[in-house]
Amino acid sequence: MGPDPAVAAVRLAVRGVLAGLPPGAMVLAACSGGADSLALAGALAFEAPRAGRPAGGVTIDHGLQDGSDERADAVVRIMVGLGLDPAGSIAVTVDGPGGPENAARDARYTALNEAARRFEAAAVLLGHTQDDQAETVLLGLARGSGARSLSGMTHEFRRHDVLYLRPLLGLDRATTRRACKAMGLDPWDDPHNVDPTYARVRVRHEALPALEKTLGPGVAEALARTARMLRDDADALDDLAVRAYADLEVPVDGHTVAIRLEGLGDLPRAVRTRVLRMAAVKAGSPPGTLAAVHVDAVDRLVTAWHGQRHVDLPGGLRAVRGYGKLLFGPV
Amino acid sequence: MGPDPAVAAVRLAVRGVLAGLPPGAMVLAACSGGADSLALAGALAFEAPRAGRPAGGVTIDHGLQDGSDERADAVVRIMVGLGLDPAGSIAVTVDGPGGPENAARDARYTALNEAARRFEAAAVLLGHTQDDQAETVLLGLARGSGARSLSGMTHEFRRHDVLYLRPLLGLDRATTRRACKAMGLDPWDDPHNVDPTYARVRVRHEALPALEKTLGPGVAEALARTARMLRDDADALDDLAVRAYADLEVPVDGHTVAIRLEGLGDLPRAVRTRVLRMAAVKAGSPPGTLAAVHVDAVDRLVTAWHGQRHVDLPGGLRAVRGYGKLLFGPV
Repeated sequence: MGPDPAVAAVRLAVRGVLAGLPPGAMVLAACSGGADSLALAGALAFEAPRAGRPAGGVTIDHGLQDGSDERADAVVRIMVGLGLDPAGSIAVTVDGPGGPENAARDARYTALNEAARRFEAAAVLLGHTQDDQAETVLLGLARGSGARSLSGMTHEFRRHDVLYLRPLLGLDRATTRRACKAMGLDPWDDPHNVDPTYARVRVRHEALPALEKTLGPGVAEALARTARMLRDDADALDDLAVRAYADLEVPVDGHTVAIRLEGLGDLPRAVRTRVLRMAAVKAGSPPGTLAAVHVDAVDRLVTAWHGQRHVDLPGGLRAVRGYGKLLFGPV
Repeated sequence: MGPDPAVAAVRLAVRGVLAGLPPGAMVLAACSGGADSLALAGALAFEAPRAGRPAGGVTIDHGLQDGSDERADAVVRIMVGLGLDPAGSIAVTVDGPGGPENAARDARYTALNEAARRFEAAAVLLGHTQDDQAETVLLGLARGSGARSLSGMTHEFRRHDVLYLRPLLGLDRATTRRACKAMGLDPWDDPHNVDPTYARVRVRHEALPALEKTLGPGVAEALARTARMLRDDADALDDLAVRAYADLEVPVDGHTVAIRLEGLGDLPRAVRTRVLRMAAVKAGSPPGTLAAVHVDAVDRLVTAWHGQRHVDLPGGLRAVRGYGKLLFGPV
């Protein structure tokens, strides 16, 4: 008799990513003790020796709740029990900028990066699932800022040379939960995961169930599929925009960025608006504040010019049309 | 004292599209009697004479509810009262294929097309708002089929040579409702609009409010903005794919479609998957059934070939790699 289908699914996903890593190199699982990352740790502990490589586990103690150190110790004991070696916890201080969620994430990645370097890990595995992906897409929808903000999390990324992989992005949370149960692992339910002050928690417990109810089951899967397709789209269009930008930028003195009008109007709108956004950001407009409405106004200097003098942009900048160019510079 | 701001907003939107039409030509409003299209009809009746052009109104009696003929007569009386001339109703029979919603839409457009031709109208105006657009995007999300299915409704389209325009796509439903009230127009609330057997009704009354609640106000606007940006993206990428396809297709005999492998692998994934989809559809695979999972499997014949024999596709087709080509043909 083979393993439980949920266990088999998680193991298969982990085996897939291990196959792509340098032979014999250490792999670490980042494990909060929740069902997703616990299933991940269990699968890694099973698969790594069979692939002839060492595997360890790291849990981060964010120090944000009473008893978080004991929680971290408990997770370490589970990881030791699974046979992960090294298995340890790292205590971090969450006091960085950009709100508590950003600060916690920054502190967590700094610690994981250190662990990865210390153990010369080829990769750190993260336990995000298809449900996390669907939540990320819906959070991106609320921003309304196009394909990139809807394209969710990547299967892999690098942060300061450390490779992070998300092998479970194609599996749902029900599968990781079933896998834990079948492996005899007792996941920890972080109270933050039901705290409705977090937008992600509201998306998980209110928005997604409402969408499932109205649109039918499979919404999370559809959102994850959408994310992947839109990521391909954004990659292709961003790449075209980078090349068009390099072709159109004209060197000028000082703090001004200039791009040639000739050829700009012939670009497809999707590429042209990306080029205009790049120029504004290069001239100093803050990317987080520069919105579609600003870029559209600049675009009308190109495509619907009837003598508009200039367009004001966030960051004390302005775009002006003149001398066969668009000029982005300080007011 | 100027008009109510909601009335001014609807009129401004209508004025904007009238300015782009041939001078002096007739414009028709399609009016169901609901708040959106009633506000549209009121604004058209006000703006058209000021722009020196005739304007009429058409309402469609779908014959799906008892008393729908009397309802249609009441809408005609309102349009006559607004000064629209011609103003009339057209009774249609809803019995076409593809489910009741599709059949009703087909019957409606056939009737509107006839009216547009009879009165030599330069355009037919439709009353869809930003809220309709947000609903359309969410319905597209459930399909999970990429940028095109998320790109919502266009501001303009042609159906059998008749030009249709949606001037209210940037306004919300609250504005059309306020505009009706300020113009003394009494909108009809179609009971179909609260019938939860329709997916769109569930999206309107359950999914969107849940998203507004979890993600904050402005979700409908963000969805509409997303739709427009993704439409630009889809236009640019579809256009690149059409050109790549023309470049890569190789003429072969019979029912087989062939595309060269050389050059295919170098295309960005977003373009390549569109080319593969076009080839499969041209070979006879039904576009509605051909899913991302099929296209992905074909893509692996290109990018991750390790001797796979073929990929089966909907419509009794299969894709085979051989002779430096991908061949799409009957099983």
